[in-house]
Amino acid sequence: MKKVLAIDVGGTKLIHAIINEKGEFLSEVGKTSTPKNISELEKTFKEVITKYENEVDYIAFATAGAVNITNTKVDSSTPNMPAGYNSLDFAQLSKKPVYVENDANAAAWAEYKVGAAIGENNNITITLGTGVGGGFIVDGRLLRGKSGRGGEVGSMKIQGRGRTCTCHRKDCFESYASGVGLKKTAEEIAQTDEIFKQSIYKSKTANEITTYDIIAGLKENDEYSKKVFNIWKEDLTVGLINITNIFDPESIIISGGMGEFINTKEIENAINSEIVVSPVKVKLAKAGNYAGMIGAALLACEKF
Amino acid sequence: MKKVLAIDVGGTKLIHAIINEKGEFLSEVGKTSTPKNISELEKTFKEVITKYENEVDYIAFATAGAVNITNTKVDSSTPNMPAGYNSLDFAQLSKKPVYVENDANAAAWAEYKVGAAIGENNNITITLGTGVGGGFIVDGRLLRGKSGRGGEVGSMKIQGRGRTCTCHRKDCFESYASGVGLKKTAEEIAQTDEIFKQSIYKSKTANEITTYDIIAGLKENDEYSKKVFNIWKEDLTVGLINITNIFDPESIIISGGMGEFINTKEIENAINSEIVVSPVKVKLAKAGNYAGMIGAALLACEKF
Repeated sequence: MKKVLAIDVGGTKLIHAIINEKGEFLSEVGKTSTPKNISELEKTFKEVITKYENEVDYIAFATAGAVNITNTKVDSSTPNMPAGYNSLDFAQLSKKPVYVENDANAAAWAEYKVGAAIGENNNITITLGTGVGGGFIVDGRLLRGKSGRGGEVGSMKIQGRGRTCTCHRKDCFESYASGVGLKKTAEEIAQTDEIFKQSIYKSKTANEITTYDIIAGLKENDEYSKKVFNIWKEDLTVGLINITNIFDPESIIISGGMGEFINTKEIENAINSEIVVSPVKVKLAKAGNYAGMIGAALLACEKF
Repeated sequence: MKKVLAIDVGGTKLIHAIINEKGEFLSEVGKTSTPKNISELEKTFKEVITKYENEVDYIAFATAGAVNITNTKVDSSTPNMPAGYNSLDFAQLSKKPVYVENDANAAAWAEYKVGAAIGENNNITITLGTGVGGGFIVDGRLLRGKSGRGGEVGSMKIQGRGRTCTCHRKDCFESYASGVGLKKTAEEIAQTDEIFKQSIYKSKTANEITTYDIIAGLKENDEYSKKVFNIWKEDLTVGLINITNIFDPESIIISGGMGEFINTKEIENAINSEIVVSPVKVKLAKAGNYAGMIGAALLACEKF
């Protein structure tokens, strides 16, 4: 059975493990922090690879950023990574074949192969964290587009409220449905709605209210927090309706930190009452925090 | 070379022709009006099929409505077709294999195989007419989803202006970017913007202004008409940005009656200045009014 050294590259940390072609872990998960300059980063990659490459068939990276169509290089600017990251030729890092995939795509593949969407040939994994990521499985294959950059659902414009996203564009799905989006909605409602005057947070200024405050406020039955969270859910639902109508998927898998605050059945019902395609299931992700590594390892086994 | 009897089923007329596996016409195009009840419609189908089925290998239908995953039946309600249309078993209409596909999907396939998107394995055909239709080619294959209903891009929610669509939902792309959407924008601006008071249409009431008036007004340099048309183009562009970010296609092919009023280069530039994936081309459709028949015939040849 094929073995893969899988490495997940995030802005703050690198994690790695040996994974077989069934997605099973054959080693402990190693962690280091992500070096802040490109030569240190490359050196760290080489150290990890040198240590394990004789034990494995392939090397697989799950990484932030858009990955090119040949799965060899990061093709976009990646603000959280060291400058020069998108010049790095991953294939040169090892004598074994090297495969690179975007982390959201890799996580979606893991959900499809060993997680919450097994056997569902049309499914979508949406990651709700600081931002919003998406991975799309169409007829059993990962949607990558002409250049490998496909799946940028966070940049879908869903509203006309004129909110500016961290990408400086207007009305991106990400600017509403992410954790940051929840905070922005909290600010918006604090500034415009009388309901804030009765809130447990009324002594704060609008921009002091955090995502965590709103989640905590729900448990306190704070009407302001409930209103903010409901608007956040409606905005999330609009985006999920859109992709359901286009992809007609069997399921939408919700991944990422915000997922734990969602009632999936409620979101599922809200989507299904609005769509023109057949009903979709909404489920929480199962492949866990290591989904990126697992998916990249499995994709490498498919490719090579 | 395989030959196909292709039949395009619309709400007002039926057209048919014999087409070979290269998409070439081997007969004149026959036309009849669409009967208003299901038994008459079935009888008309059988008459056409009986006349030609000995000359051809397959029968292929391009039809309004969502088609099931096995391409044998219309699966949705189809308000413009006789009651009972979605109970019709197309396979029983002929002794030859019968293939059924949604007309927008078939048209997209025709553009991909013999039209404006030849060789572009990731492309999208958008039909801008009374409504908005979409056909998506992903990695050389038609996106159909789990049930065959995928591609419903007209139901994508793109704005928060609260416009009610003909489907009774709110803020559908179709309610903004269709010909009907242009008329609705004309009404909206006539009611809310001072610019209307200087318009050549100022003696009309808002709901008297037609899509045609706005197009005519552009040629007259009417500022109101220009404003309406610019808003319509912006709304159209938002929808095209969304699908470009998700699909990362090589091209978007614009089909349908509204296409002729569009400067494709202007729309292309507007999309490319906003997307986070690599640049897309925007082109007018080439496969013509018979794209549905051509696409259905080619798909039947692929399937059987």
